[in-house]
Amino acid sequence: MHPVLAANADLAWLLAAFVFVSLMFPGLALYYGGMMGSRNVLNVMMMVMATLGITSVLYVLYGYGLVSGPSVHGWGLIGNPVHYIGLGDFQKDDGSGGPQGAFYAAWFILFAAITIAIVASGTAGRMKFTSWVIFAAIWLTLVYFPVAHWVFAADSDGHKGGFLLNDLKIHDFAGGTAVHMNSGVAALAVALVIGRRRGRAERPHNLPLVLLGGGILWFGWFGFNGSCAGGANFVAQYVILNSLLAGSAGMIGFLVVERIKTGHVTTLGLITGAVAGLVGITPSANAVSPLGALAVGVLAGGVVCAAMGLKNLLRVDDTLDAFVVHGLGGIVGTLCIVVFASSSAPAGVKGILFGGDISILWRELAGIVITCVFSFVVTWLIATALDKTIGLRVDAETERTGLDSVIHAESAYEIHAPGVGHAGPGTLHPKAASRALDAVEAHGVESVTTTS
Amino acid sequence: MHPVLAANADLAWLLAAFVFVSLMFPGLALYYGGMMGSRNVLNVMMMVMATLGITSVLYVLYGYGLVSGPSVHGWGLIGNPVHYIGLGDFQKDDGSGGPQGAFYAAWFILFAAITIAIVASGTAGRMKFTSWVIFAAIWLTLVYFPVAHWVFAADSDGHKGGFLLNDLKIHDFAGGTAVHMNSGVAALAVALVIGRRRGRAERPHNLPLVLLGGGILWFGWFGFNGSCAGGANFVAQYVILNSLLAGSAGMIGFLVVERIKTGHVTTLGLITGAVAGLVGITPSANAVSPLGALAVGVLAGGVVCAAMGLKNLLRVDDTLDAFVVHGLGGIVGTLCIVVFASSSAPAGVKGILFGGDISILWRELAGIVITCVFSFVVTWLIATALDKTIGLRVDAETERTGLDSVIHAESAYEIHAPGVGHAGPGTLHPKAASRALDAVEAHGVESVTTTS
Amino acid sequence: MHPVLAANADLAWLLAAFVFVSLMFPGLALYYGGMMGSRNVLNVMMMVMATLGITSVLYVLYGYGLVSGPSVHGWGLIGNPVHYIGLGDFQKDDGSGGPQGAFYAAWFILFAAITIAIVASGTAGRMKFTSWVIFAAIWLTLVYFPVAHWVFAADSDGHKGGFLLNDLKIHDFAGGTAVHMNSGVAALAVALVIGRRRGRAERPHNLPLVLLGGGILWFGWFGFNGSCAGGANFVAQYVILNSLLAGSAGMIGFLVVERIKTGHVTTLGLITGAVAGLVGITPSANAVSPLGALAVGVLAGGVVCAAMGLKNLLRVDDTLDAFVVHGLGGIVGTLCIVVFASSSAPAGVKGILFGGDISILWRELAGIVITCVFSFVVTWLIATALDKTIGLRVDAETERTGLDSVIHAESAYEIHAPGVGHAGPGTLHPKAASRALDAVEAHGVESVTTTS
Repeated sequence: MHPVLAANADLAWLLAAFVFVSLMFPGLALYYGGMMGSRNVLNVMMMVMATLGITSVLYVLYGYGLVSGPSVHGWGLIGNPVHYIGLGDFQKDDGSGGPQGAFYAAWFILFAAITIAIVASGTAGRMKFTSWVIFAAIWLTLVYFPVAHWVFAADSDGHKGGFLLNDLKIHDFAGGTAVHMNSGVAALAVALVIGRRRGRAERPHNLPLVLLGGGILWFGWFGFNGSCAGGANFVAQYVILNSLLAGSAGMIGFLVVERIKTGHVTTLGLITGAVAGLVGITPSANAVSPLGALAVGVLAGGVVCAAMGLKNLLRVDDTLDAFVVHGLGGIVGTLCIVVFASSSAPAGVKGILFGGDISILWRELAGIVITCVFSFVVTWLIATALDKTIGLRVDAETERTGLDSVIHAESAYEIHAPGVGHAGPGTLHPKAASRALDAVEAHGVESVTTTS
Repeated sequence: MHPVLAANADLAWLLAAFVFVSLMFPGLALYYGGMMGSRNVLNVMMMVMATLGITSVLYVLYGYGLVSGPSVHGWGLIGNPVHYIGLGDFQKDDGSGGPQGAFYAAWFILFAAITIAIVASGTAGRMKFTSWVIFAAIWLTLVYFPVAHWVFAADSDGHKGGFLLNDLKIHDFAGGTAVHMNSGVAALAVALVIGRRRGRAERPHNLPLVLLGGGILWFGWFGFNGSCAGGANFVAQYVILNSLLAGSAGMIGFLVVERIKTGHVTTLGLITGAVAGLVGITPSANAVSPLGALAVGVLAGGVVCAAMGLKNLLRVDDTLDAFVVHGLGGIVGTLCIVVFASSSAPAGVKGILFGGDISILWRELAGIVITCVFSFVVTWLIATALDKTIGLRVDAETERTGLDSVIHAESAYEIHAPGVGHAGPGTLHPKAASRALDAVEAHGVESVTTTS
Repeated sequence: MHPVLAANADLAWLLAAFVFVSLMFPGLALYYGGMMGSRNVLNVMMMVMATLGITSVLYVLYGYGLVSGPSVHGWGLIGNPVHYIGLGDFQKDDGSGGPQGAFYAAWFILFAAITIAIVASGTAGRMKFTSWVIFAAIWLTLVYFPVAHWVFAADSDGHKGGFLLNDLKIHDFAGGTAVHMNSGVAALAVALVIGRRRGRAERPHNLPLVLLGGGILWFGWFGFNGSCAGGANFVAQYVILNSLLAGSAGMIGFLVVERIKTGHVTTLGLITGAVAGLVGITPSANAVSPLGALAVGVLAGGVVCAAMGLKNLLRVDDTLDAFVVHGLGGIVGTLCIVVFASSSAPAGVKGILFGGDISILWRELAGIVITCVFSFVVTWLIATALDKTIGLRVDAETERTGLDSVIHAESAYEIHAPGVGHAGPGTLHPKAASRALDAVEAHGVESVTTTS
């Protein structure tokens, strides 16, 4: 075999998979934006998109080193931050023909950014934008980069990698811990610190966008899970099949439980169920059979629907349910490995139902507990520190008026009613509107023109 | 040549193509949802998305066997349903390096699901959701799986495949019969059984979403047609060129005829024309020259526009014109092969204009007639049987109020007018709204929270 | 090495990249449509999408020859228009296993169409649709095809290519000149000829769609820049990393300057900044280091924001700021090569800051000036000629009413307010509405049905 050529084909698939994942950012922005009330749409969309800016800068500076650099002291806790500083070494082709540092840097940036973007959903509708940017930068540094090192950094030629992967040897195919539990638990912690939203119930303002956003997430997830196979190989096609099955079954699980609970099946339920199924299959995609993937989906979707009232019980306003969908969904998926991993599947892990050793339970539980406790505690500390200093939360007036108009001087929609003519800045808060128009006069914001 | 390496590159392209096709589901949901009135948006979007759940389960259980299993009795009529039950065998890597059962299963699920999803458009706005789920499951089993076996199952090492492909040897590159004619005719049949919508004319409620949905379909179509080349080869690039040309020319054909008929060119016309051109090129993509692809597009687009009044003549309320666009469009594309297939194109089929034998006409006509008659008759029987038992149609009150609020307790949009403040559940029917809020109290639907 | 196999893998990536780029059309349509007022949404979306129809036909007839054919007289100014007429030769597989004429034709069509589609933004809201179609066809022929020949056609086995690429040897990785400066300057020229819009300031009517459209552009840009590497190789992954970094940094650059200028950070600013960063990295993606890519993004985003008032100074109503974003953004990116190209990056170009020779400045400046002057002058001539003959601009009444209803007999949205029931054609202008309903009676426009 020609390794260069095999590497070429692997790279062709990985490049495509990367691009699929990149669409998850506008996808997540729509998914979350559509679920908000119509005065807080743009704010959460910006929280999501801004993560790309923050993560890109940090990754080039020290993130790559913290995640993928050799473990400091060989302890498996954190990589060396200066090892790849500036990523200058990635300008050279190593001649392997396959994915190299340049690819991995781009790919890891997306993984990190999507994780912190999920956290945004927990505090949507009441967080200062500047505080979000600062919080996100600190959280990536203190929470995400370490956990990603634990789980994604493999030991290699003399370099020590992360302890969860290499020492504890947990099975987590594509980020059930570092991405999903981590973000879900962090969203809960920061929602706890920032407190609940004021005012009346708010219904999702644009469900077609939610469905589209969720559909784009699914599309990106094929790239996300599929790229973790490392190339255009058997595992890639296998995990793509299982991702299709689990997403599909997630819908079913959620809708069945929803129908029992409320008598209805909803669009929001359908797409939330698909996402829950995909979260569930993320750690387990290469470890369960196709029938197992259907079971993972049904269970993740069903449990997530059943647990939807949890935040009301806990009295924590995790706005868009990141904890239940990503945290709990990730836990369910991981426990599915423990129970019914199929030793015939590519990972070769044997679940307890199929004669596996009980040790897998302790191993996976340790992974869950370590990730969740670390994420919760450190996130809570960061959020509390910021809240006591720069403040996390907008003032009551801003929250009542809506963050879009006050913070961003914009409103999501300016769609005029029949017969009303063209009456100016629509749903903008009067004060913000007048500020916005002043700004227009001053510097001619794109596409706003005053003509004779 | 190294077969494993060639297979690797083929797999890289096929995986990407699969992911492209997966985005056709939210694409189709937007395309159809946007064309509905604003009270029936979510319902049709759910009908489309739910097909993934239904198809995934059936395919794992017996669909793969029915379509791709060895023909029962070697008759070429239907595959063996138990041959691949549970898809457990696909957990093993066969070492070929290329696409294997796991890939084909995922890929075939999307093809099947998109076909039944198109059928949804015929009855949009008046079908019970539960009846849709049951209808879809039966239709896949009794109509799609057999027709797909006829057209997609090739004879292979001792196993007999489908009779249209192997015995009649029809030319159908990527599913003009099994996907497009089949779904178009079935939509007509079920629309006939369920009857016409009540009430006044309803205009598409959100044309930007229709255009986006159609654009996503085009994007997915490159994966759909391109994957039928079986790998990253000459045919793949050739059919992608022709798919671009035919979609583009489809716009032109539709808009020209529309301008003549009505004096206007519309967004709906533009994107419907592109879809019609793509339907036309689906069977013919590898059989016509680039100039031929332009002709296929112009003809398919033009004929579809010209035939738009057909449903009013037939007095069948095929809500979103699946029969004209997919049924007729598929027939036009197939007849284009008969007339002007270029023997220089990869398929090497010679159309009558270029000295081809008249036998190609009978062969393709047989394919069209067999597919359409079978699909119409069996679909009509299934729909009639369900209508007489569980009932297909919602009650008049639900139809008047809108299916979104009554069936799903949701409304597509909750966008508040300037100055009105935040007045609760918007366009929801009062009864549904109160039920929905009760549900919120009871189990805390995602993103609806009551805070102090 | 087996060249066929390497070619296979390259093709796998290029096919996927092509499909990514194809989604830029609905992406651009949303991006522009969302920025318009709600009465001129569909018109600009159709202007964008129609470019695919126009370009496909021209490219098959003579565009491929003009761009990629051997230079007429070997002057490097324009290719031979009849060399590839009909693209009939592309039906034959040359056995190379890699991308061939069929692929390049499809790929070049998208590059050409996206360029003229950007020009559409300059005159949005006041141009006759028929005049747009005619203008676009002439502009492609007289402006785009020549410039693309200059920049994209390499000398090859005895055939002479374009002079900017082969003689002047400018560095332009993926179309900073032919695509971005060309379209930006042309938009300015045609906006100058057609004159400014009438009436009051108009704010973007749907910012979630703008953000989605911009996000899709970014997604497509990975395919755009990534495909210019010619295969699944080191350069492809390198430019994808830099495209991610520059888009991310573009956001930052724009938002920082916007915050200073107006006190706000906006969604429109965020996504415009990302697009500006991507424009900047288009010529420079393989020539700067990762830190350099961050700098390109920050500079392009910052300069574009700072220059947003320019059109008011110039009193040219370049509706959606194509000149600033694409023209100026492209110039900034090109100057970044001059200043800080890294000789360690794959292109091996040495910027002045890193000891490069000053000659690079003259070379790149010549490329900028030649492209911009040619594009401006010829575009101005074409637009003026058309304006004096068929007329470019709609009448005042149409502009006041909105182009969607008058030209296309459609309105973007028909979303009914709570409690109002279903009151007919919504925001349509009464005259257009009655015409539209007449049309419905006459030929049964899709999805509009009158039922008992």
